[in-house]
Amino acid sequence: MTLQSIRYAKGNLEVLDQLLLPAQCKYLQVKTVEDGWKVINKMQVRGAPAIAIVGCLSLAVQINEEKFESKKALRQEIEGRLNYLVSSRPTAVNMKLAADDLIQFANILCDDESLTIETMKQRFITRIEDMLDRDIADNKAIGMYGEKEIISQYPKENQFRILTHCNTGSLATAGYGTALGVIRTLHSSQKLEHVYCTETRPYNQGARLTAYELVHDKIPATLIVDSMVATLMKQRRISAVVVGADRVASNGDTANKIGTYQIAVLAKHHNVPFYIAAPFTSIDMNIVSGDYIKIEERPDREMTHVGDHRIAAQGIACWNPAFDVTPADLIAGIITEKGVFRPAELATLEYH
Amino acid sequence: MTLQSIRYAKGNLEVLDQLLLPAQCKYLQVKTVEDGWKVINKMQVRGAPAIAIVGCLSLAVQINEEKFESKKALRQEIEGRLNYLVSSRPTAVNMKLAADDLIQFANILCDDESLTIETMKQRFITRIEDMLDRDIADNKAIGMYGEKEIISQYPKENQFRILTHCNTGSLATAGYGTALGVIRTLHSSQKLEHVYCTETRPYNQGARLTAYELVHDKIPATLIVDSMVATLMKQRRISAVVVGADRVASNGDTANKIGTYQIAVLAKHHNVPFYIAAPFTSIDMNIVSGDYIKIEERPDREMTHVGDHRIAAQGIACWNPAFDVTPADLIAGIITEKGVFRPAELATLEYH
Repeated sequence: MTLQSIRYAKGNLEVLDQLLLPAQCKYLQVKTVEDGWKVINKMQVRGAPAIAIVGCLSLAVQINEEKFESKKALRQEIEGRLNYLVSSRPTAVNMKLAADDLIQFANILCDDESLTIETMKQRFITRIEDMLDRDIADNKAIGMYGEKEIISQYPKENQFRILTHCNTGSLATAGYGTALGVIRTLHSSQKLEHVYCTETRPYNQGARLTAYELVHDKIPATLIVDSMVATLMKQRRISAVVVGADRVASNGDTANKIGTYQIAVLAKHHNVPFYIAAPFTSIDMNIVSGDYIKIEERPDREMTHVGDHRIAAQGIACWNPAFDVTPADLIAGIITEKGVFRPAELATLEYH
Repeated sequence: MTLQSIRYAKGNLEVLDQLLLPAQCKYLQVKTVEDGWKVINKMQVRGAPAIAIVGCLSLAVQINEEKFESKKALRQEIEGRLNYLVSSRPTAVNMKLAADDLIQFANILCDDESLTIETMKQRFITRIEDMLDRDIADNKAIGMYGEKEIISQYPKENQFRILTHCNTGSLATAGYGTALGVIRTLHSSQKLEHVYCTETRPYNQGARLTAYELVHDKIPATLIVDSMVATLMKQRRISAVVVGADRVASNGDTANKIGTYQIAVLAKHHNVPFYIAAPFTSIDMNIVSGDYIKIEERPDREMTHVGDHRIAAQGIACWNPAFDVTPADLIAGIITEKGVFRPAELATLEYH
C-alpha cells in the first residue's frame, strides 16, 4: 500500500511527522488551525499540495467542534483563520489559492438564505474534504500526461531513466504525488528502468522522504548527492528530469526547491528535457514572472546541523534560500492534470 | 596563525584528524608507513598535496627508526613502502609522482659508492623533509599568480567575489593552500570582497574544513549548499570560481572533488571564469585525457550517514563517486607555481 501522510476522518486529522522520517514513522494529531499552522511552519508536513490540504483540513476539524452565533460569525472565522494559514509558508501558492476559493465559497453559503448555520458549516467542511480525493485524482492525471509526454520524446524506446529532486510524492500531496506520480505511472506500466533522486540539501527531503517512498513502493532507484547531477547526466543517459513546483508564474518561470534551477541548467547542457509536474493550481496567473515570486529564506541551523549534530564550522555565515526560480526557457513542459503546457502557452490559457 | 595540519620534527609526525573537525581539534601520531596509509585511506588527512607529504613523511619517520643491512636493502624497503602508499587513494597523482621521484632518488643514492648506509638514509629523509617547505613556497606562488590572473580579467575592479569548492587550504596541503591560497593572497592584499564556499557533500569538506579555516583566518565568507551555486551566480556577481585538482591530464581535463564538473558547467552558463589552482605536479603528462583518470567510488555510508546519524532511508541504493572530471573546454586556466596555463598550452610544456 502507498504511504499515507494524511489520515483524516470527520473531526479527526493526523499527519505523519516528516521531520522524524526515515528513523521514525509517527503521526501528529492536528486539532486546531494553530496546530495546522505549526506543522506546516515547522515543516513536519511539506510539499505545496499537502500544505494546502492539511491547512484547510485543520480548519475543517476546528470549526467542526465549534458553535457559531450566526452565519456571519462563521464566515468571519473562516476568513480570519485562512488568512492566518496562508502566512505559515510564504512561497507555495496552493494554500493562498485554496484560501481564496474557500472564502468565496463561504460568502456564497453565507448569502444563501435557505441555509442554516449548521448546514453552511457542513457544506463548507465537505468542500474541504473533497480536496483530498480531488488531489489524488489530479495526481493520477498528471502521471498519465507525464508518461505520455516522455514517451513522445523517445518514439523508439520503452524504458526510461528519470531524475527527480526533492520530494513530490505521497508525502508531499494527498497521495500518489506529482513528479513522483509521473514516476509511479511509468513504473506501473513497466516503462521505468530506473529513477535517480537527489539528496536535496539542506533538508534532505530526497534522501529522507523520496528514497523512503521509492524503497516502500519497490521502485528501482538510486540516491545521489546534489553535486553529482552533471556527472550522472554525462555518464548515464537520463531520459528526462521531472520535478515539482511551489509556484509557476504566468510566463512559465517556476519556483521550486533550491537546486532546481541548477538542475535545469545542467539538463540543458546535457540535452535532457526538463519538466515541471504540478497541479494546475500551482500556476499563479497574477504573477507575470519569476522576479515577483517571494523566496523564503530559512534559518542557518538547517545547513549547519543534522539533527543535533553540528556539521559546519562554528561562526561561519550561511545563506539559505529555500527555493529558487527556474526561467521558463529551460523548461520543456509543465505537466498538469489538464495536460502538458509549454511555458509560452500558459499566458493564453483561461484560468480555472 | 594559520592552522597547522601537519606537525613534523625529525622522527616525529602528527597529523590533525580532519574527520573530527570542526567539533574537535585532535592530532594523531603517525609512526609507520602503515599508520600513514591508514590516515590517508580513512581520510583523516586528505587533499592531494597533503596526502603525498604525509605519506612520504610516514616513510621518513619509519626508516629513521630502522637499521638496514645494506644500501640495497634500504632501497628495496623504500620502493616497497612507497608503492604501498600509492594504493591508499587511487585518484590523486601527487603521491604517485612523489613515489616515482623518491624511488629514482633512492636509486641514485644507492649507486653512489661514496655514501654509507647512514648517509644515504639521512639524505633520503632530508629530501622528504624538503617537500614540506617547498609545498608552502609553491602555494604562495600559486596565490600570487592566481591573484594576478583574476585582476587581469577585471581591469576596472579591485574587489573580487570568489566561489570555491571542497577544501584546498592549510588542511589539504603543507600550509597556505592552493585554491584557498589564491583566496588568502587576495585577502591579504585587501582585494577580496567575499568568498563563498560550498558544503561539498557527501563528506562536507567545505562546511567542516574550508569554513573552519576561513573563520580561523577571519576571511569574509559565506557557506552555501552545493545546490545553491547557480542561484548564487545569478544573484550575486561572482568574479571567478577557483578550485583545486587531484589530477590534471595533459589535455587539461581535470579530476577534482565530485561536484566540480557541474560548477564548471554552471560557471560557463553564467559567464564566470573557472580556474583550477594546483601544484605543477598535479599535471600528469602520462594521461592524455580525463577518460583515462580512474575515479574512486567510496562507500554508501558516507552518503547515508552523518556520524552515527542515518539521514537516508533504509534500503536505498547509492552512487558515490568521490571525484568527477571537468573537461578542459570549461577551464579558463590552470594556476600553478610556475604560472597560469591555458589547458591547450599544457601539451607544449616540457615536463618538470
